[in-house]
Amino acid sequence: MYKILVIGAGRSATSLIDYLLKQAVTFNWQITVADVDIQLALEKVNAHKHGQAISFDIKNETNRLEVIKEHDFIISMLPAFMHGDVARDCVALGKHMATASYVSNDMKALDKEAREKKLLLLNECGLDPGIDHASAMKVIDEIKQQGEEIISFKSYCGGLVAPESNDNPWGYKFSWNPRNVILAGQGTAQYLQDGEMKFIPYNRLFSQTDTIAMEGYGGFDAYANRDSVGYMDVYGLNGIKTMLRGTLRQSGYCRAWNLFVKLGLTDDSSKINNANKLTYTSLLESFLPPGSGTLKERLKAFAPEIWNHEVEHKLDYLELFSNKKITLSEGTPAQLLQALLEEKWKLNEDDKDMIVMQHQFEYHLKNDNKKTHRLESSLVVIGKDNKHTAMALTVGLPLAITVKNFICKKFELYGVQIPNVKQIYTPMLSELEEHGIVFTEKQK
Amino acid sequence: MYKILVIGAGRSATSLIDYLLKQAVTFNWQITVADVDIQLALEKVNAHKHGQAISFDIKNETNRLEVIKEHDFIISMLPAFMHGDVARDCVALGKHMATASYVSNDMKALDKEAREKKLLLLNECGLDPGIDHASAMKVIDEIKQQGEEIISFKSYCGGLVAPESNDNPWGYKFSWNPRNVILAGQGTAQYLQDGEMKFIPYNRLFSQTDTIAMEGYGGFDAYANRDSVGYMDVYGLNGIKTMLRGTLRQSGYCRAWNLFVKLGLTDDSSKINNANKLTYTSLLESFLPPGSGTLKERLKAFAPEIWNHEVEHKLDYLELFSNKKITLSEGTPAQLLQALLEEKWKLNEDDKDMIVMQHQFEYHLKNDNKKTHRLESSLVVIGKDNKHTAMALTVGLPLAITVKNFICKKFELYGVQIPNVKQIYTPMLSELEEHGIVFTEKQK
Repeated sequence: MYKILVIGAGRSATSLIDYLLKQAVTFNWQITVADVDIQLALEKVNAHKHGQAISFDIKNETNRLEVIKEHDFIISMLPAFMHGDVARDCVALGKHMATASYVSNDMKALDKEAREKKLLLLNECGLDPGIDHASAMKVIDEIKQQGEEIISFKSYCGGLVAPESNDNPWGYKFSWNPRNVILAGQGTAQYLQDGEMKFIPYNRLFSQTDTIAMEGYGGFDAYANRDSVGYMDVYGLNGIKTMLRGTLRQSGYCRAWNLFVKLGLTDDSSKINNANKLTYTSLLESFLPPGSGTLKERLKAFAPEIWNHEVEHKLDYLELFSNKKITLSEGTPAQLLQALLEEKWKLNEDDKDMIVMQHQFEYHLKNDNKKTHRLESSLVVIGKDNKHTAMALTVGLPLAITVKNFICKKFELYGVQIPNVKQIYTPMLSELEEHGIVFTEKQK
Repeated sequence: MYKILVIGAGRSATSLIDYLLKQAVTFNWQITVADVDIQLALEKVNAHKHGQAISFDIKNETNRLEVIKEHDFIISMLPAFMHGDVARDCVALGKHMATASYVSNDMKALDKEAREKKLLLLNECGLDPGIDHASAMKVIDEIKQQGEEIISFKSYCGGLVAPESNDNPWGYKFSWNPRNVILAGQGTAQYLQDGEMKFIPYNRLFSQTDTIAMEGYGGFDAYANRDSVGYMDVYGLNGIKTMLRGTLRQSGYCRAWNLFVKLGLTDDSSKINNANKLTYTSLLESFLPPGSGTLKERLKAFAPEIWNHEVEHKLDYLELFSNKKITLSEGTPAQLLQALLEEKWKLNEDDKDMIVMQHQFEYHLKNDNKKTHRLESSLVVIGKDNKHTAMALTVGLPLAITVKNFICKKFELYGVQIPNVKQIYTPMLSELEEHGIVFTEKQK
């Protein structure tokens, strides 16, 4: 009996565990779901005859080693910074491992030993990163096979709320870790534009945005991801002129969010003590430079390039002018803002989330580098409810499918791998289509 | 023979070690100077008969314990984040310890055990923090003793270059850790203004500045320090209306520095690969939003509120428009900027640095809360050369003096202490005066 261990039974593991339990019947696997919260693990296993739930603390090294030892393949759905210990244990004990997270330096350091031991360390095999790599590489490989030359590649992805559940002026609800949404973009974004390196610092990230159109869904704001340049190598696109990966939000979101950035409400490095003596209104006031007039007048004077009726409406929706109490006794500005947004941007039971992805390619035909051809490849996935989200589906399925394909020997690759190679992405994309995850390609 | 161990023989330890060696003759102490760089330690000891130099790696736990065990009092001049291990060892082995750094959470956690064992953990006993606490508390205690009520306290300090060595348009040269200067202010500054909490985020820190006048030295820019509010308790000033601690720079510095902040050149969280393919000029271009015209025209269009001839002159001085090569192969924007500034803002052999400190008090007399009285207490210290800096003197002397006073039983206090109590600050300030570190008080 092949034994698979899933560590972490949170929101984004739902579809992964469902899929694995279903396959377990066919292939006679045993699926162990491990979480610090045993109740969460029990819920996800739902008394399936091929499943078992265990209580598991990643920090307990002895227990961690024992549990990993008993399994053949380890899938970590933990937050990214926790993968390192699990990966070291896996390689030491001769186990395969998979995550949906970016390849970390810890992971890279294990590559050689894993290859020698014929162990797979699969990473970046969720949605973004994951489906984005797979679907982009499919097009890139096809274009290259024709001898054509890709000169520009832009790729955008957003985890949003479906139009039918979009009932707040921000057009946003949380379908994944809220903290990551609040802190998104801190640092310097790097990309390539017409052959030149471009940098965007955090203080301008939400004003230097693009508009992306999705047929049937209107326009979206797009802001640049942290590192687009590092993917030139991964995608085999060295020599390309323009390379940008970005994140999508509903139109108007970035303008309003930029007000929070400019005010300083997204800083996560300095703690405010006795925060519960403040209201969200007095917090806003405390962040404004000296001035006179009503709070709204002062905001307008502070950021005339941002302030308009839509922004005012968005701030009103968050009760920022209603003297709403802060309940956290202490926290960084980002933590105080997060507490408010978790209440206001909650994905309710019947709410549906939405995944939007778009790749934009520009290329020259063989023997004709004058005319620029354009190709768009787009994906929209709508969730079922706030448990069976499009986010959980698109993060969990590619990972689960690829783990199955490896176990069933559909590909034999070892060491650190991501779904940028044909052997991995072809069967993955074709099975995703059976689950309604289908890209639409269009020549522009 | 009482044995004192000084860990770290860098620039800021010069005066401390000189003082301790001199006292060692009087009190028959032995001074051990420990550094990873034995040469540096040997230079500082300079073959003094009461001194010895040893090679010492803080990360080698066995050796660290052995060396600490052989001494009675440990002074750590290491970077602040390295004090934790030393402090734990000291308390475990029953040794006193002193640093010039802010009290860390590691340090706080050792307070109880240190008190029980009658061990001193002296912190914040350099310049800022250190002399600032001592000199402010002296005035605060005097005002309070008269029954008067302090309603406002502002305190400013800057480590600058002396007027006679001020030969660059920034009015700045490095007299301490350059990295701290580049990253200064990242986070959210907190202070109290007229009874209300005020926050300034990093993106506005260098534009929301004050001007501070020092007789004979002209005006200085002042930007707010990270946390002023936490010092209300420490200074016994609960109930005060205005409380601000700030950092001083030469007039005009903050305006120009703000251009770097706005461009994104001070970010330390994202690495730029292949940086040595860029010049400082192309780096500037890469950080600018799209636009046309010369680089200077684009900078002016990007930041019209900042750009003027003085700023242009400052940037010219740094060769930012001369296609100067970046030599680091990779680094964060902050690291690339630091490499340039270390070259341009070097304190040359005969250069003198300058310490400027000013406390501003506002208070009401007993039985008269209408009239506001003002008192200013100011300090200027000029260094001798680039080894015997005012910075090394004002960081090292208060620490050395206070360690001596403790060993000579001028005060008996244990656990975590800072120089905000009379027993510590009175003898410290009076001995500092013998070394020319004298505050001038003035009723305004």
